[in-house]
Amino acid sequence: MTRPSVNRQVILSSRPAGIPEARHFHIVESPVPALDAGGVLVRNLYLSVEPAMRGWVNAAANYSEPVPLGTVMRSFATGRVEESRHARFKPGDFVTGLFGWQEFAVVPADSVLRTITELDLPLSTSLGVLGLNGLTAYVGLLEIGRPKPGETVVVSTAAGAVGSVVGQIAKLSGCRTVGIAGGAEKVAMCLEEFRFDAAVDYKVDDLDHRLAAACPAGVDVYFDNTAGAISDAVVRRLNIGARVVICGTASVATWDPPPVGPRVERALLTKRASMHGFLALDYEHKRPEALRFLSRCIRDGSLRYREDILDGLEAAPGAIARLYRGENTGKLLVRLPDAR
Amino acid sequence: MTRPSVNRQVILSSRPAGIPEARHFHIVESPVPALDAGGVLVRNLYLSVEPAMRGWVNAAANYSEPVPLGTVMRSFATGRVEESRHARFKPGDFVTGLFGWQEFAVVPADSVLRTITELDLPLSTSLGVLGLNGLTAYVGLLEIGRPKPGETVVVSTAAGAVGSVVGQIAKLSGCRTVGIAGGAEKVAMCLEEFRFDAAVDYKVDDLDHRLAAACPAGVDVYFDNTAGAISDAVVRRLNIGARVVICGTASVATWDPPPVGPRVERALLTKRASMHGFLALDYEHKRPEALRFLSRCIRDGSLRYREDILDGLEAAPGAIARLYRGENTGKLLVRLPDAR
Repeated sequence: MTRPSVNRQVILSSRPAGIPEARHFHIVESPVPALDAGGVLVRNLYLSVEPAMRGWVNAAANYSEPVPLGTVMRSFATGRVEESRHARFKPGDFVTGLFGWQEFAVVPADSVLRTITELDLPLSTSLGVLGLNGLTAYVGLLEIGRPKPGETVVVSTAAGAVGSVVGQIAKLSGCRTVGIAGGAEKVAMCLEEFRFDAAVDYKVDDLDHRLAAACPAGVDVYFDNTAGAISDAVVRRLNIGARVVICGTASVATWDPPPVGPRVERALLTKRASMHGFLALDYEHKRPEALRFLSRCIRDGSLRYREDILDGLEAAPGAIARLYRGENTGKLLVRLPDAR
Repeated sequence: MTRPSVNRQVILSSRPAGIPEARHFHIVESPVPALDAGGVLVRNLYLSVEPAMRGWVNAAANYSEPVPLGTVMRSFATGRVEESRHARFKPGDFVTGLFGWQEFAVVPADSVLRTITELDLPLSTSLGVLGLNGLTAYVGLLEIGRPKPGETVVVSTAAGAVGSVVGQIAKLSGCRTVGIAGGAEKVAMCLEEFRFDAAVDYKVDDLDHRLAAACPAGVDVYFDNTAGAISDAVVRRLNIGARVVICGTASVATWDPPPVGPRVERALLTKRASMHGFLALDYEHKRPEALRFLSRCIRDGSLRYREDILDGLEAAPGAIARLYRGENTGKLLVRLPDAR
């Protein structure tokens, strides 16, 4: 195989105030640098698109440093090792890591998160149900939410890459599962594909009453991907001892300044309930356990997932906004040439 | 001793919308009933006044059933057993329990929370630093807040019956302690009497900057007795992994409907922080441990407390509003005749 000489990269051009749009990025061509000792050259095959990217490109303090202007957009990606100067990797290995929105990544070996071993499953799963989304669902629900059999678990963005996995793990844990999603199509997906016990369309009026009907025994665990008015309705139905797991804030366009909403202190106090922010990357030590569980459930048919795959590097810049408009169904990915 | 024949009782006359005032109560005389088997007759010596009473008399769903109109106001009280038809109690025992705002209580033995054994300490402590306030501070800080040496612990209503104990336990746990209180006198009490490392007056402008100056390393544990704007300022300074312990909402006059404030979801998410409502009565099993620790600290001088004692049953009806106006310094109690 001849060594690739030209790389194409998606560069962050300007900093959005809220949701990043295509116009905040541009694509450049650049040479593929030589490998230093300990480095690997990865040909990216799938690029991830995720809600967290909004935080990564905003200037405000966040859980990671902002992506510097004029550099490659930060992203998880999965690819094939083309060259290696590290003993742990050899050409032909499939690997996943923070490789960025680009065709080729030259990275030190410790940027590789893992070598993919589930080669019987589609490679794309390494960025979704077997990637950060799956880990997020697994640790957020089981470590923070700690559902008990018979409890009611409510999930927002329930048809999404994280929410759909949360709902299915909760069901496998013996819980009643209630999904909140936007639009009839996603509600149907929740019920038919992801087997939620009930699903509520937040775009229809009177969320409070419909949520009450879907949760006759109240809410014990709320896995929150949205914040905002959806969460306000769920908080009004918390049971004593309820746990709210804050995974994302997809319904809020900007946090600078924070929007106002009903204060939660009294509900938390009278219900002896708790709200926990968490970040799956703090639970890296749980990844092997999560991967074993999730891949086993995919193979035995008890865990379903959806992917929404866009083709070509040119699709990446506009993909984050697409995600926030809720146009995707399932994990949003960009596929590059050579992907199987 | 002749058996008392006339009891005087504080009766809840009407339901306040927010803070209960003297006009929501009236005092009646009634006979002291005979004892059933298993009952005790207690002569109340101290009556407790506490912020939670607002919740007890409001009609809205809360952590206990509302006090019915026309009945004796619910209250913790400490008194002396006058008659007993239960083997566990004998005349002359000092006991504490939910005896109500009245001179004499005829109650079943299981209404007695405990027989007081710290007879070397003032009897009044059984309702404050050795009562629910002390238990609240102990379990809220140590079980929920879990402070580690070197961390910064911020407490609101820091000069109060709970806050002052929280600050001192945090200091004994090796933490930097920062008190928030209203007015120069309470700030001075925090620093001089309760030995906080820093204290901030929330009634002076620019709470944000003064809090930042008092917490140069951010906030790891926030013991929240107020909610509202004070809490908003603290939430802006949370460190990664911070714990917010929600104990009370003293700064908010009414929760029907809940007031609005800046949403907390993003701060909790990016800081992987948590907020926990709790109720000390859920930690009854920790009471012996808390009592041993707190009474030892009082005896060795490492724990100070303040009490603000009003005299006579007539003082009770207006006492809750006095508490919410912040006029008391220390645990607010009503002393009845015969108290030592």
